[in-house]
Amino acid sequence: MPENNNIFLNRIPTKADITEAHERIKTVINKTPVMTSSYINSVAGAEIFFKCENFQKVGAFKFRGASNSVLSLEDEHLKGGVATHSSGNHAAALALAARTKNIEAYIVMPKTAPEIKKKAVEGYGAKITFCEPTLEAREASLSEIVKKTGALFVHPYDNYTIIAGQATAAKELIEEIIDLDIITAPAGGGGLLSGTSLSVKYFAENCITIGSEPSGADDTFRSIRDNKIYPSVKPNTIADGLLTSLSEKTFKIISENVNEIITVNDDEIKKAMRMVWERMKIIIEPSSAVPLAVIMNSKEKFKGKRVGLIISGGNVDLEKLPF
Amino acid sequence: MPENNNIFLNRIPTKADITEAHERIKTVINKTPVMTSSYINSVAGAEIFFKCENFQKVGAFKFRGASNSVLSLEDEHLKGGVATHSSGNHAAALALAARTKNIEAYIVMPKTAPEIKKKAVEGYGAKITFCEPTLEAREASLSEIVKKTGALFVHPYDNYTIIAGQATAAKELIEEIIDLDIITAPAGGGGLLSGTSLSVKYFAENCITIGSEPSGADDTFRSIRDNKIYPSVKPNTIADGLLTSLSEKTFKIISENVNEIITVNDDEIKKAMRMVWERMKIIIEPSSAVPLAVIMNSKEKFKGKRVGLIISGGNVDLEKLPF
Repeated sequence: MPENNNIFLNRIPTKADITEAHERIKTVINKTPVMTSSYINSVAGAEIFFKCENFQKVGAFKFRGASNSVLSLEDEHLKGGVATHSSGNHAAALALAARTKNIEAYIVMPKTAPEIKKKAVEGYGAKITFCEPTLEAREASLSEIVKKTGALFVHPYDNYTIIAGQATAAKELIEEIIDLDIITAPAGGGGLLSGTSLSVKYFAENCITIGSEPSGADDTFRSIRDNKIYPSVKPNTIADGLLTSLSEKTFKIISENVNEIITVNDDEIKKAMRMVWERMKIIIEPSSAVPLAVIMNSKEKFKGKRVGLIISGGNVDLEKLPF
Repeated sequence: MPENNNIFLNRIPTKADITEAHERIKTVINKTPVMTSSYINSVAGAEIFFKCENFQKVGAFKFRGASNSVLSLEDEHLKGGVATHSSGNHAAALALAARTKNIEAYIVMPKTAPEIKKKAVEGYGAKITFCEPTLEAREASLSEIVKKTGALFVHPYDNYTIIAGQATAAKELIEEIIDLDIITAPAGGGGLLSGTSLSVKYFAENCITIGSEPSGADDTFRSIRDNKIYPSVKPNTIADGLLTSLSEKTFKIISENVNEIITVNDDEIKKAMRMVWERMKIIIEPSSAVPLAVIMNSKEKFKGKRVGLIISGGNVDLEKLPF
């Protein structure tokens, strides 16, 4: 795939880059609410502020990065449309962002993707190409489409423009809730976590970032520990949004700005997910329950703290619930 | 049961009574958010404003009435505590309201009540008495407790103080969203619906109230049509919060102030519930999906209108979902 470095932001996002991204996308994104639960606070022994990106458009924070990418580009770069491979929230986010600019979105999806995700992406008007469910097949299909259509490849996270967009969730949280001690976000490909850590560095004094990860997909934990990127090989976790590997760009930012990665197992994730559903009456996907599971499982670390927690999304298949 | 007419409000709540109730409970209730969904609006062909009482304390609007009842009373009437029979949200609401005043709450519950509801009521510190699952057994148990403890019976809806409290949900909605054409709320015992219709009359010009009811528990529909109270006999619906019969007080208010009762079947209710879960990412109980099912099933009536919809609660057993 082409690097696109001249088209997208070509440096680790600065404070100004994130502020500009926020200004750029403000009118198209939802300013999502921050919610609290006195019950969960009393169990955790901490004050937790949930930034509810499950209420974001397309049901996930991914719309921030996708709309920042589309809105930051010149018309000449957009005339062939945009393209990506994804079976998840980034595909839907890019499709909707493209529609707001009246350009085509070409999405490569594995033919095994859940029906509900196919329908969502179709519903946003994207052109879907189905491929075999391997990384090679995805990349080959995508290359072909890019070549044929002139569409611009928008990587889901190895892209500083995307990262700057994802950073705006934590920026909004910091602007609304003062004096946070810790912000925690889930670690998948690292787009959300790296962006979050930059916003913490730029906008929140005396606050640290903690990454939360399933033990069944702990490549970020191991990569940071050993200071080298381990690909995510055969991940096995209910948190289906966190299966991907870090990229060069996200790895570097996380290495430099995230204090710690903490892992939890699937039982803890399910328990935290259930607690949010039952007590807060909001629907979050398993990936979004990982940070709360971490808080509940490492209580000493969070005790008495004001903790910001990014709820990454709320797209779940209601026919396959873990309850 | 004693009438308690000298202790509670002894007239159909006036505008001032509802305003006073709102002032009284403002600091203990959650001011719940009003949410919208552009997807649901486009399907319905109407603008729908969801007043989210699923985010109310105890997960249902019932806390408004219960806290109004407890906070409106003199200490001398409260010294024996409060009592009620309920297997549902009113029990939890009264228990929590009593705790905020540091008085006892005695709750009679059928021994067949779901475990999760027993735990919730216990969690709020109430004293539970279990009885056989018949109305006679409930009333007998309650009489005995009232006699023994001097506790004050707080009926879940045949009580003007309760009705004035429930009315505050629609009042808040009207204050936040101007120019509503219709407000719709589910019809069970009629506490919420009667209170809603009073707030529409007092606070919303050119707005009407429509009651929404499951066809499997259509006693309100039939009662209003024939101008006499039919008890709810063997109701059969997934909307488990709407099984009770109207009372004299709620019947009179609804007769005078609600424009129409519209019924829908359980398939329509399930479909509406699923739409809210999937598209709005919030958890609502089946009873709360009834008004949306009505809108979706009577589109001509709501077309182009600004519709307020009271989401009554979000207490569902996650192990028994209809999906």
